[in-house]
Amino acid sequence: MAASAGPEIERLIGLLAKLPGLGPRSARRAALALLKRRDQLLAPLSDALAEAAARVKTCSTCGSLDTQDPCAICSDGTRDASLICVVEEVGALWAMERAGAFRGRYHVLGGLLSALDGVGPDALRVGPLVARASEPGVREVILALPATVDGQTTAHYLAERLAGAEVTVSMLARGVPVGGELDWLDDGTIAQAMRARRPA
Amino acid sequence: MAASAGPEIERLIGLLAKLPGLGPRSARRAALALLKRRDQLLAPLSDALAEAAARVKTCSTCGSLDTQDPCAICSDGTRDASLICVVEEVGALWAMERAGAFRGRYHVLGGLLSALDGVGPDALRVGPLVARASEPGVREVILALPATVDGQTTAHYLAERLAGAEVTVSMLARGVPVGGELDWLDDGTIAQAMRARRPA
Ligand SMILES: [Zn+2]
Ligand SMILES: [Zn+2]
Repeated sequence: MAASAGPEIERLIGLLAKLPGLGPRSARRAALALLKRRDQLLAPLSDALAEAAARVKTCSTCGSLDTQDPCAICSDGTRDASLICVVEEVGALWAMERAGAFRGRYHVLGGLLSALDGVGPDALRVGPLVARASEPGVREVILALPATVDGQTTAHYLAERLAGAEVTVSMLARGVPVGGELDWLDDGTIAQAMRARRPA
Repeated sequence: MAASAGPEIERLIGLLAKLPGLGPRSARRAALALLKRRDQLLAPLSDALAEAAARVKTCSTCGSLDTQDPCAICSDGTRDASLICVVEEVGALWAMERAGAFRGRYHVLGGLLSALDGVGPDALRVGPLVARASEPGVREVILALPATVDGQTTAHYLAERLAGAEVTVSMLARGVPVGGELDWLDDGTIAQAMRARRPA
């Protein structure tokens, strides 16, 4: 791209273009929208990013993101500590929360096993999951993983690893369409899959 | 949207969702990408936005955006001061610069006349354009406006207003597809339309 907009604006466009969903063209549109709406958009977004950079951290219990550690969900005494819902990423946790079908705790794996991408168990938060599942009072681990090859491989691997802990291991029902990533599903589908979950 | 990700992250998602090209879902993905790539993406974008908010201003001559006023283009002595290219918005100016087919100066109107949206001449930078066009040494004003109803209405209005100034008034050739916004065009189309421009 020619440096037509000055180095500061080109740098801003370049960074915006790295966001998923924004290509080089839409990044330019976004930069322009920001620069035209300085007080309503540019300044607040700048503040929100600075605050997120300074304050948001990873929950040492579940792996979610929050400004407190343990996170608000892990600290919430009204939530059912006997249920742990395992998700691939924080985006899937957010989708579960929006669906409002689950009132237990979470465990963010940080990815899926993948032979193709060379992701093994050590790259995921599997050990901490087994440890949490073995704590007294934990009754059920729900594997809310995508219905993809990697998702199902990971689910079966986790079911084996959790066999030693005295917990029921379940999976989301087949309401999740094949190949479907959780965070692209509508809330109703997620709620239904949660209600109809089955043993792994 | 349920406040599933904590107020700070929800605020960030809400602001990202206001960017053109990002809906609520892609804004969540973007927020997650930012939070996962703190050092490579979140911190640099936060800095770039803060710098843009502090340093980028509107050029008092042409209406473009830059960290200096007059902007780099208006200050560039190697550019042809006898040509003024009128564009709707800064995004169109950037598109012209990327096409590399124009080495004169610009004038950013700040919009188009629109009966429907109630945009009259006073809402646009028409007076300053007429003043600039009347300065000695200005030879041609090129109306690089979109080939839409509002774009063409605006072009004809400007041609009338510029009749008193001793300048040639031209328009981009019909290489610009009907309904086409300049900043979505490929560079070759823009360059061709510039070369084949015709009297307004
Ligand atoms: Zn937590
Ligand atoms: Zn300028």
